[in-house]
Amino acid sequence: MVLSLPGWIDDVVARFPAALGDSDQRMALAIALARANVERGGGPFGAAVFTGSRLIAAGVNRVLESGFSIAHAEILALTSAQQKIGTTAGAFSGSVSLVTSTEPCCQCFGAIVWSGITELVCGATTADAEAVGFDEGPKPEAWPEVLEARGIGVQRDVRRAEARSVLEDYARRGGVIYGLRHPVLP
Amino acid sequence: MVLSLPGWIDDVVARFPAALGDSDQRMALAIALARANVERGGGPFGAAVFTGSRLIAAGVNRVLESGFSIAHAEILALTSAQQKIGTTAGAFSGSVSLVTSTEPCCQCFGAIVWSGITELVCGATTADAEAVGFDEGPKPEAWPEVLEARGIGVQRDVRRAEARSVLEDYARRGGVIYGLRHPVLP
Repeated sequence: MVLSLPGWIDDVVARFPAALGDSDQRMALAIALARANVERGGGPFGAAVFTGSRLIAAGVNRVLESGFSIAHAEILALTSAQQKIGTTAGAFSGSVSLVTSTEPCCQCFGAIVWSGITELVCGATTADAEAVGFDEGPKPEAWPEVLEARGIGVQRDVRRAEARSVLEDYARRGGVIYGLRHPVLP
Repeated sequence: MVLSLPGWIDDVVARFPAALGDSDQRMALAIALARANVERGGGPFGAAVFTGSRLIAAGVNRVLESGFSIAHAEILALTSAQQKIGTTAGAFSGSVSLVTSTEPCCQCFGAIVWSGITELVCGATTADAEAVGFDEGPKPEAWPEVLEARGIGVQRDVRRAEARSVLEDYARRGGVIYGLRHPVLP
């Protein structure tokens, strides 16, 4: 099974400085990835993994392209970063930040717990994603506190309006809302 | 990024009849996969995806071998099955069963929600995994009911004692308890 990322990701990354000094700048990259993915027919989600100001790996949602339900932007960014760093027992050591254009769904929430990241930075909210029709799934209501209790700092609402606009543009174009209450609720 | 399964999985599968008529027989395969993985230095978890009595794909935990924190048995079995079937928008259609030697952790619980399976069959319990030192993470206390509400039937305690013995043997051998409260709880 191959989880692959499109080559154009490097072009998006190349539009940004090599050092992205704060969460706001790092989020700008995650949002640019989400927007570029929509323009190429993908889902409206982007994510990137950093150590300090330095990008380790970027990801975009590839569910539609790959047919894999796990292929969310966060999963691809985390897995790509783990491959690049060469982790032991599947977890980063040191300070690692995951920056995601939309708050994680239930699957990515769980994956974050094992990934070894120490910080999660979010743009659009769960409510923003659900407002355009996406289902974020059953995660704990107090999910940021659950992550904090495990040593993962959570920063929310970073460039939220800009991140939300990617979701709204996607819905306006009639983008597929995959994963929507699948299989089927009664 | 390549999620790969070991070639010996086919040898384990070959020891079983082509049609496994009930959950008990299907669980015997998942447990055999878990046990074979331990014997080869892997984590004590196995899973398999079925349509009716027919195996679609099998998986074992590959976290230690791959360095990927997502490489749980359930994720590999689901992704391999989605690849073999060729799913649309990352979800199965029709009746699909995931049989896992131990109840899913928080990550696999979330992944199950989007996978499109219609049935989850579990061997050892969350408490069994935690008794030997594994952390199953923050999933809803009533997680079976949450899945049921989404149209995924849940069957538990299938060959539980046999499944638990794989976990216990792993711990007795001094197997690595990866993902354990990682990064570090205060």
